[in-house]
Amino acid sequence: MKKAVETKERILEKAVEMASLFGLRDLTIGQLSTEVNLSKSGLYAHFDSKEQLQVEVLQKTASIFLEYVVQPALRQPRGLPRLVGLFEGWLNWSNQGVLPGGCVFVAATSEWDDRDGRVRDALVTIQKGWLAVIARAVELSKEQGHLRPDLDAEQVAFDVHGIMLSFHHQSRLLREDDARARAEESFASLLNRSQLVSESLRYQELLRNMRFTP
Amino acid sequence: MKKAVETKERILEKAVEMASLFGLRDLTIGQLSTEVNLSKSGLYAHFDSKEQLQVEVLQKTASIFLEYVVQPALRQPRGLPRLVGLFEGWLNWSNQGVLPGGCVFVAATSEWDDRDGRVRDALVTIQKGWLAVIARAVELSKEQGHLRPDLDAEQVAFDVHGIMLSFHHQSRLLREDDARARAEESFASLLNRSQLVSESLRYQELLRNMRFTP
Repeated sequence: MKKAVETKERILEKAVEMASLFGLRDLTIGQLSTEVNLSKSGLYAHFDSKEQLQVEVLQKTASIFLEYVVQPALRQPRGLPRLVGLFEGWLNWSNQGVLPGGCVFVAATSEWDDRDGRVRDALVTIQKGWLAVIARAVELSKEQGHLRPDLDAEQVAFDVHGIMLSFHHQSRLLREDDARARAEESFASLLNRSQLVSESLRYQELLRNMRFTP
Repeated sequence: MKKAVETKERILEKAVEMASLFGLRDLTIGQLSTEVNLSKSGLYAHFDSKEQLQVEVLQKTASIFLEYVVQPALRQPRGLPRLVGLFEGWLNWSNQGVLPGGCVFVAATSEWDDRDGRVRDALVTIQKGWLAVIARAVELSKEQGHLRPDLDAEQVAFDVHGIMLSFHHQSRLLREDDARARAEESFASLLNRSQLVSESLRYQELLRNMRFTP
């Protein structure tokens, strides 16, 4: 039993890597079986269909995302430091080799936005969850007096997500050297106009004082 | 000769539609030949490889984009009205049935950000061109006194593009009813903090006064 779980984990980790590089839609049980040195029938013992495999790859990616992005941010003090932690964690996630080919969710979004079914449903659930995590960090920042109490947290989450997507585009497709600097400038500017007390919580200062240990 | 050009145009229009729905990477000459009722060898008379077809699909999409988004905006007065025209034109483009499955460029970005070659090069050229068009509209807005003269136009283009990508995600994947309202709120807020004279150029007012005729 334990061995079966370990084998499945190993298969899923390889599948996440392949989805990051080549897309989730083109992931086949045949190719994957070659990569992990198992027979196709061996893989079917773990996943009863390609669709089931794709759903589990998304869930596995979400658990890696929790470990590398969300949990380190949750160890920052609540309020703005935590929001900054989520933002910086995502920049690292999408372009620093946690996944070899960039964010699986960004790629899967274009692959599934015109399709229905279980894969799309799983993706939507994960993406809504992520936007809710950002919005929650904004709410806590309001409670802590770090952000204006009248802010619409979902609107801020929309904006933060836009900066992330623009960063992903400029760093991965356009390979612009200053993509990260631009993303941080945009985020700082967003915080700046949202802040109750801007002088005491300067972005660069926050950044210097953070510990990024997963 | 004229007939060959017309046939090629008809093939490319169908190919753009298929790329919008199913992605550019999976577009095959075989499938396309079925859709346009021509033999595979008939298609090879127009495109010598799948790669050549993909490059021409991107170029054809760019020419449709020019017609539906860029040219109508260029008919607005230079300065902020033109910038607003580009923004609103893109929202219409990506989610109002010009293309049945959303923006071909957004989808192709995820498909090619880890690949090299002619398709990627064509995509990068088009995307850099689009960001330059936005940045140019910002520069003209500065010259017209509509935006602060010290603004970094490329930084504003980065932000505007992020709002567009966030809108694309929320409207197409998450199917949020308020995606457009959120995008316009974000853009208005970006303009508001960038404006020299904010009272005389209110966003909603601009919007009411615009004519969107392609």
